[in-house]
Amino acid sequence: MASTSSSDHTASSTSTQDALVLRMDTAARKLLTAGTTEVDTQAELQTMCLPITALWCRILRFDPAVPDWPDRDRCVVPSSAMLPLLAAMLRLTAPDAHGLSPTTLEYGQHPAVEIATGPAGQGMAAAAGMALAEQQLANRYGRSLVNHRTWVLARDSDLATGVALEAAQLASRFGLNRMAVLVCPSPLTDPTDFSDSLARFSASGWSVRKVRAHDLGAIMAALQAILRARKPTLLACMPECCSPLPDMPPEEELTGPWSPTARRGSSIRRSWLRRLAQHRARADFEREQLGKARQTMREDWGRVWRQTMRTAPNGSTQQAAFAGLRSLSILRQDVTILAATSSTRSSRRANLPAPFGHAAQPCGIQEHGMAGMLNGMARHGGVLPCGVAGMMTIDRMRSALRMTALMRSKVLYLLTDDGLALSDNGGGWQPVEQLASLRAMPHLAVFRPACAEETFACWQAALNWPEGPALLILCPHPPPPRASRRAGHYGGPSHGGYLISCGTGPRHVTLMASGPEVAIATQAGQHLSQQGLNVAVVSIPCWEVFAQQPATYRSAVLGREGLRVGIEAASSFGWERWLGAEGIFIGMDDFGISAPANAVYERFGITAGAICEKVLTRLLAAGAQKDPSLTAPTPSRLEDLDMSLTITRL
Amino acid sequence: MASTSSSDHTASSTSTQDALVLRMDTAARKLLTAGTTEVDTQAELQTMCLPITALWCRILRFDPAVPDWPDRDRCVVPSSAMLPLLAAMLRLTAPDAHGLSPTTLEYGQHPAVEIATGPAGQGMAAAAGMALAEQQLANRYGRSLVNHRTWVLARDSDLATGVALEAAQLASRFGLNRMAVLVCPSPLTDPTDFSDSLARFSASGWSVRKVRAHDLGAIMAALQAILRARKPTLLACMPECCSPLPDMPPEEELTGPWSPTARRGSSIRRSWLRRLAQHRARADFEREQLGKARQTMREDWGRVWRQTMRTAPNGSTQQAAFAGLRSLSILRQDVTILAATSSTRSSRRANLPAPFGHAAQPCGIQEHGMAGMLNGMARHGGVLPCGVAGMMTIDRMRSALRMTALMRSKVLYLLTDDGLALSDNGGGWQPVEQLASLRAMPHLAVFRPACAEETFACWQAALNWPEGPALLILCPHPPPPRASRRAGHYGGPSHGGYLISCGTGPRHVTLMASGPEVAIATQAGQHLSQQGLNVAVVSIPCWEVFAQQPATYRSAVLGREGLRVGIEAASSFGWERWLGAEGIFIGMDDFGISAPANAVYERFGITAGAICEKVLTRLLAAGAQKDPSLTAPTPSRLEDLDMSLTITRL
Repeated sequence: MASTSSSDHTASSTSTQDALVLRMDTAARKLLTAGTTEVDTQAELQTMCLPITALWCRILRFDPAVPDWPDRDRCVVPSSAMLPLLAAMLRLTAPDAHGLSPTTLEYGQHPAVEIATGPAGQGMAAAAGMALAEQQLANRYGRSLVNHRTWVLARDSDLATGVALEAAQLASRFGLNRMAVLVCPSPLTDPTDFSDSLARFSASGWSVRKVRAHDLGAIMAALQAILRARKPTLLACMPECCSPLPDMPPEEELTGPWSPTARRGSSIRRSWLRRLAQHRARADFEREQLGKARQTMREDWGRVWRQTMRTAPNGSTQQAAFAGLRSLSILRQDVTILAATSSTRSSRRANLPAPFGHAAQPCGIQEHGMAGMLNGMARHGGVLPCGVAGMMTIDRMRSALRMTALMRSKVLYLLTDDGLALSDNGGGWQPVEQLASLRAMPHLAVFRPACAEETFACWQAALNWPEGPALLILCPHPPPPRASRRAGHYGGPSHGGYLISCGTGPRHVTLMASGPEVAIATQAGQHLSQQGLNVAVVSIPCWEVFAQQPATYRSAVLGREGLRVGIEAASSFGWERWLGAEGIFIGMDDFGISAPANAVYERFGITAGAICEKVLTRLLAAGAQKDPSLTAPTPSRLEDLDMSLTITRL
Repeated sequence: MASTSSSDHTASSTSTQDALVLRMDTAARKLLTAGTTEVDTQAELQTMCLPITALWCRILRFDPAVPDWPDRDRCVVPSSAMLPLLAAMLRLTAPDAHGLSPTTLEYGQHPAVEIATGPAGQGMAAAAGMALAEQQLANRYGRSLVNHRTWVLARDSDLATGVALEAAQLASRFGLNRMAVLVCPSPLTDPTDFSDSLARFSASGWSVRKVRAHDLGAIMAALQAILRARKPTLLACMPECCSPLPDMPPEEELTGPWSPTARRGSSIRRSWLRRLAQHRARADFEREQLGKARQTMREDWGRVWRQTMRTAPNGSTQQAAFAGLRSLSILRQDVTILAATSSTRSSRRANLPAPFGHAAQPCGIQEHGMAGMLNGMARHGGVLPCGVAGMMTIDRMRSALRMTALMRSKVLYLLTDDGLALSDNGGGWQPVEQLASLRAMPHLAVFRPACAEETFACWQAALNWPEGPALLILCPHPPPPRASRRAGHYGGPSHGGYLISCGTGPRHVTLMASGPEVAIATQAGQHLSQQGLNVAVVSIPCWEVFAQQPATYRSAVLGREGLRVGIEAASSFGWERWLGAEGIFIGMDDFGISAPANAVYERFGITAGAICEKVLTRLLAAGAQKDPSLTAPTPSRLEDLDMSLTITRL
């Protein structure tokens, strides 16, 4: 392995190297003491100092001159409390290398900071994602190009969180033996809790070791064992009450490009560059590192999609999106899919073949750990991470998704089983507020396509969304055949919102909807048109993209006059943005009932008939129409109209 | 213990009892087979049938005639897949007892269903909360009144989730030895994953046992061992490939009030009723079971609050809310507080005493498990659950909070450390979308008070909120002294929104804000008034309560004319509801920077000066004011104005 051979490469005797580590440790401790951290945190930093110094000096693949070269070891610091250690290491190995004071270390500002700090446990999951990305890339390009490890400088609070425990299960399942976590007990934690944490990791298939944090020999032995480990490793560094450290004189040679770390790292990187230069897949590797697709990608994608649309034009959005994912993973080698069990529920029920086959990594019920891993995969680079999960599990993934958005990472999510139609098997946990809560998140694009054709455009827009993660929310039931193919009267789904149909002359009513409700809006629009009204039907699959369109386009789509009606089987929260003060919203501001799908749609009045009735009542009340023929339809006629999408389930 | 003695009470020999259990098991299996469940689920149901039948017949404190009597054993079924087992037990012990077909078993429709089914793991956490509530009540009223257990009929997917693992840690920490989980491996799960799950529970301080699911003797021994256990117990029921069950003839006596279960349960409940009738604290117990406070509660609460306001009128909302919680837990014995570590961070930093002392149960970093437990505590009855956590951890608790809202349970949350001012210690995870995402959730009331006085009113309103959970979002920094006491020009905080100040005559500008931004709005209002504008300042601490006020009140507060300005250090999402189409929002639709607080407020223009500038620019552009004196203030004057709340931190 490159790491072990590189430590021989320095050709020094062990004792000389030990002395170097101890000198650097002394210098690092001085830097740490100079900081303004709290007492408890300071104790943790001091405990971790020697293990981290040893890692940095002797093991870590790190070149201070180019901290972000692709085959570097990832050193993940999940919490800001541990950042001073990273700052000390950087200060001692690469002073002023990037014109930044290491005391203001922050994600996005210093290339050695791999992820943004966040809630406890997220960094653990992200590190597992990085290790998975490394594993995937190594499988593709071989160990001559991809041969690094992921180290986590964790706190014990990270270990106790649910997301870390989920990620630990996944790391073990995926055999991520190149992931190692270094941790020490916090002075504030009950020692029993800490040893329980270790036992839980052991029970999750991890190799768990304890070392005395002041025993350099034991630390080096443990680190060398990690390099040979066949499991992910947790190394607990146990503090000692009174460990007299030899008081070494500080050495100038510790810092700067002459430091042992810098020398070792630079030499490793240079030999890697030589291997890369001769590698047959160099172009692919470099392109994927930059997150770019092949130049022919757009054409290939378009061709695949046209074919899909020809063979199954009336499929559900879920089928269409899965077809897209399958195509994408053929066209782009860097696509890496994690799929939760919740996503396969309906595909099993609908007796579909497993949608991704061997290309997807199964993540079971651990959606939160999975979402955290997707973060790390995106930060690692070289892969395009896609997550597939059930729509209703998004709440569990929210903390991780937020980190994705905060780091503006490109992660694509396919969320299946959207729609009230799925609630009939008890439980009553219909989605209500999920759409609104996701739309409120910065940098995130939420797509809710209405038919296979829109799904195509949304896939494309999600891939092109420049700001961060994108979600596709998918329904397993196909829309009614009439509604499934539409030309688009003005604009198109790639604009986030567009006119499906519109008469000429002044508009009376604009019906806006997304996802499965577009078919209902279309039906309602047809009926209202028959009543002599000029009705426009608008599909808004993505608010974020629509909001970025020019104001003239938006007002042309939404209409400058007439009644605006929003239709979505979800909370009204936020809809005022498109409806204005006078608009009507037809949806649900309450949790649903457990009942067959049609009953739920009917209970909330999300049917073509009920929509027509509300619209006509409002127009009559407003006196906008004097035409006596415009009375509300009789109940019997309403029943004829009620051909909402759920009928096609039968 | 009552449970063990009760099984003796039937005075039958073991073999007779075993025969009864086996007969009931045979009948239950027939009912299960008649259902329409999937094959895999059917296998799990069959495996669990004998253990559950044994539990039901011999151990469970359950009276079919009164399934919801207070000292019953709780039998929690977290997933709808396992509900057929509960249905079979109910059918065999209490047919048609409640006029409901047990096949439509659902939370809120049948009293024997303790919680709504939801995401995997939530039921485990809720059960831990029930066990904690039982522990608390037993400590208060003694074992003669409170002597029941919590049983969970889990699936293995529940065990693997983060929330269940967090709850397992908490259950062990709190010594909830009256909680037991029965589970069997799913045919779809890797056997290694299942044994890892068991090992993780064992590592969390649980007693873990395996029994053969067809061996009644072993099952009974394991159930009896649970009654004596000193830890929470996980009982894994392992299926056997070919276990020939004796084919017993069905017995009529199994069903109806003559069934052994019904006889045993009825006798237990009757003797409990006799003990209750003679208990000295009977009145307290019954009142708390109904979730009611003492009649003098309102006066006592008012007195405590007036005193708090006298002694510390200028405190932060966080101090005020903690004082309220302390008072409440003195006035109401049933208040039970769970507090996460994240909530004590700032109180430690600000060198405050621990806010609740021994009354609060520490939940460490396991906020999600904690929130799940709060659900169970509320469903158990007899306690008023309060959770205290850091504002930024709400995303992790979201799945559990949603269950609280869905079940319309009364849980109070105090969320500390709100406000941009707290982001200076790196990390950059400023709240942006949290407020919007919470406001979108049905039945949940989100309170964000601006000062100590508003906190009082919000506490009161949160206690009175009839629909479900309520959150108080709290800032650790006191508002500027001038802003901290306000009379209220029209209405008051208990209306959700009210006029702080308003001139006479037609309004030019209405500034609306919540929480710490109210002080900034007040300052901006003062300056704009000096410019000759008629400015109203509105505080909206709670949208949900404000939305319930009569339309005339709302429009009197928001004003019928003039420019509306919303100010909140959060996402604009949803603000159109109050601002209309023409309003301005001043806040942040992006993640912040990591910087000292003032810098973050300034970066997003959430300062009195920047607000004035925006308002004046808009008014000038609109030509609403022809007065030449109304130019935008010069930068130097703006700096003088910039006395936002963060100055008081120094």
